[in-house]
Amino acid sequence: MNVEIISIGDELLIGQTINTNSSWMGEQLSLIGASVYQITAITDDENHILETLERAAEKVNFVLITGGLGPTKDDITKHTLCKFFGSELVFNKDVFSKLETFFSSRGLEMLDVNKDQAMLPTNALVLENTRGTASGMWFEKDDVIYVSMPGVPYEMKGIMRDHVLPRLRKDFIKNKVVHRTVKTIGIGESFLAEKIELWEISLKKANIKLAYLPSPGIVKLRLSGYGIDESKILASISNKINELTSIVGDYIFGYEKEELNQLVGDLLIASGKTLSTAESCTGGHVAHLITSVPGSSAYFKGGIIAYDNSVKTAKLGVKNTSIYQSGAVSQEVVEQMAIGAIEELETDYSIATSGVLGPDGGTAEKPVGTIWIAIASGSGVISEKICLGKSRSRNAKITALISLNMLRKYILSHINVSQ
Amino acid sequence: MNVEIISIGDELLIGQTINTNSSWMGEQLSLIGASVYQITAITDDENHILETLERAAEKVNFVLITGGLGPTKDDITKHTLCKFFGSELVFNKDVFSKLETFFSSRGLEMLDVNKDQAMLPTNALVLENTRGTASGMWFEKDDVIYVSMPGVPYEMKGIMRDHVLPRLRKDFIKNKVVHRTVKTIGIGESFLAEKIELWEISLKKANIKLAYLPSPGIVKLRLSGYGIDESKILASISNKINELTSIVGDYIFGYEKEELNQLVGDLLIASGKTLSTAESCTGGHVAHLITSVPGSSAYFKGGIIAYDNSVKTAKLGVKNTSIYQSGAVSQEVVEQMAIGAIEELETDYSIATSGVLGPDGGTAEKPVGTIWIAIASGSGVISEKICLGKSRSRNAKITALISLNMLRKYILSHINVSQ
Repeated sequence: MNVEIISIGDELLIGQTINTNSSWMGEQLSLIGASVYQITAITDDENHILETLERAAEKVNFVLITGGLGPTKDDITKHTLCKFFGSELVFNKDVFSKLETFFSSRGLEMLDVNKDQAMLPTNALVLENTRGTASGMWFEKDDVIYVSMPGVPYEMKGIMRDHVLPRLRKDFIKNKVVHRTVKTIGIGESFLAEKIELWEISLKKANIKLAYLPSPGIVKLRLSGYGIDESKILASISNKINELTSIVGDYIFGYEKEELNQLVGDLLIASGKTLSTAESCTGGHVAHLITSVPGSSAYFKGGIIAYDNSVKTAKLGVKNTSIYQSGAVSQEVVEQMAIGAIEELETDYSIATSGVLGPDGGTAEKPVGTIWIAIASGSGVISEKICLGKSRSRNAKITALISLNMLRKYILSHINVSQ
Repeated sequence: MNVEIISIGDELLIGQTINTNSSWMGEQLSLIGASVYQITAITDDENHILETLERAAEKVNFVLITGGLGPTKDDITKHTLCKFFGSELVFNKDVFSKLETFFSSRGLEMLDVNKDQAMLPTNALVLENTRGTASGMWFEKDDVIYVSMPGVPYEMKGIMRDHVLPRLRKDFIKNKVVHRTVKTIGIGESFLAEKIELWEISLKKANIKLAYLPSPGIVKLRLSGYGIDESKILASISNKINELTSIVGDYIFGYEKEELNQLVGDLLIASGKTLSTAESCTGGHVAHLITSVPGSSAYFKGGIIAYDNSVKTAKLGVKNTSIYQSGAVSQEVVEQMAIGAIEELETDYSIATSGVLGPDGGTAEKPVGTIWIAIASGSGVISEKICLGKSRSRNAKITALISLNMLRKYILSHINVSQ
């Protein structure tokens, strides 16, 4: 089953609304094994809609249309579909009485424009919309299915879940697709690609596709397997992920939707340990990521943001001589900050950061992007220097993620040692 | 000038990545007066790319292509463009030496796949990408312009801002469009719309369009004026902004790209004052916003993230009895936190937050979304309770913004008093 998604509405083209509808539909369709061929966003223009429908019908057997079903004058999808199918609008008594209930249950008066919502094409199978006033419509013509839905996200999702997806799964999907995502940190896309080049070539034989999905600090690898037998595809993908782990396992931190802050939180909860932060350059971003996890108050006690050197010495016990001799951006100072945090805030672990985030403030010895990270616990302190680019916001993000990953590895290695 | 935006990449079709690139480009193009005809997302498939380019060329005179320029095997855009233009890839010495600098300045080794990034089509004008390794490319064929750019958002935006938008504005756009943005905080979109209803109607006569652009905590109003004479449009928009200020001036905090953290920073620098933070519920987000501003170390000394009550008492001098009697989420505690911050970190001003961020942890008396904010200075402390929704990340964002706006107003009122 090949699908084109057509989104109708000016707001999508001028960037006023981000087309999240299409992404959601694409994900839902992929999950049931349909293949999305194209996503097209166009204006409320009759000719453009007609041309787009004709072109889509040459390429796919399922066309999903959203938008342009509202009660206002600029919504022309319903009339245009009538033209496309050589159909006409007729009064639908059943839909009308549901509209009456919809309005009366909300204590609203029903206007003439709302009554028009009960006028529906003769050749459409009506898909009930329990969340709004514009019905979904299912058409079939020359072996192609067309479904038209309102553009309001939660109404569209309702119709998809109630009608479209179950129907597709039941009657139209034969092949299965399985996706698995592996998440890496600490290695750039091209270095990763070089390390796994032979493995990547071997995927073709297993009928698995690979996608690199980079974001600041992180490269996700998505494996998509195709076939008839879901368990066979799963086994084949699992095999390949095992092979991948033997090559670049050191860089893998998680799978699917797992995030570093949640993973660190899970480890802390499992081990009953607490965490604090001592941030200079990241200025609260590390703590913000940690506390973005619901329930983080169970293990995160707090942090000191030591932006000014006076705060490093007064609140974290960093030695003035260390700052004077080695500079605030140094191994010596960042380790003292991390130790200061576990002592002052009485926690089992701490994360400390100190660096030149940019865009200015670099020197020949410590250029912009030079950042020290330390992890301390009762049994010692470790630290690492990383060299990033010149973008302040990217540097803050990447530093925060790498520091969380350092803590994750530190905790895991301590668990392994103590076992 | 009619534009089609073509986004290439499987991740867009299966919903793994939301196509924010297209929205951003659509907005930028609309802002300079270009008209976006269609946005198309397709897979990395040669035939599909070729067909899409051919179809686009029949309808528009400017085609923007993103994605598929990475160094990995699934990126085929460059080769496909060569086929489309009957061109071939040649080694570009200039680009190669810039790539060498790019890698050496980051202390990275240059791999063979990176060297391939210097192979570029003979007929392309190269658009320098200072933020990554894949160059932008500008092609012209049969009166249609094609621009290909990498899909990494900040690289694409860099090339658009550095090369594409200035070139379009200079050589291709005739009619003038002028945009002015007014930024409000502390009032919801529908309440704002009600207050300015008559003013909004009056815009039509002045040939000005209005757009509401809401984001968590903030509603931006964008006024777009159209015509031939830029100074006339500007004067007309200025008039309307003056009228707007007389209606809802209390909610306006800035214009154009002004951000609250930058505005607060400017005020602190101008008055030679310093700032600290004492955060509970926001967990570092306020400090992160403050330190996102380059040069913020001139006024931001640091902060205490007092997530655990023990940190509130030990590090900020909050009284145990206050926490016991009024709870950590209370006016009494948040004011003590703010005073504790200016005393402990020796600053002129401080921001403190304490609340129930959610999604759980609310009570009948203090439901999720109940948040106290305080601002302290040497001359006293003020505080305010806000009631937000149930989304943890939205609540953190909105609280941080409102706290910055409270500080901004506090500083301004003190300046006015002392004048």
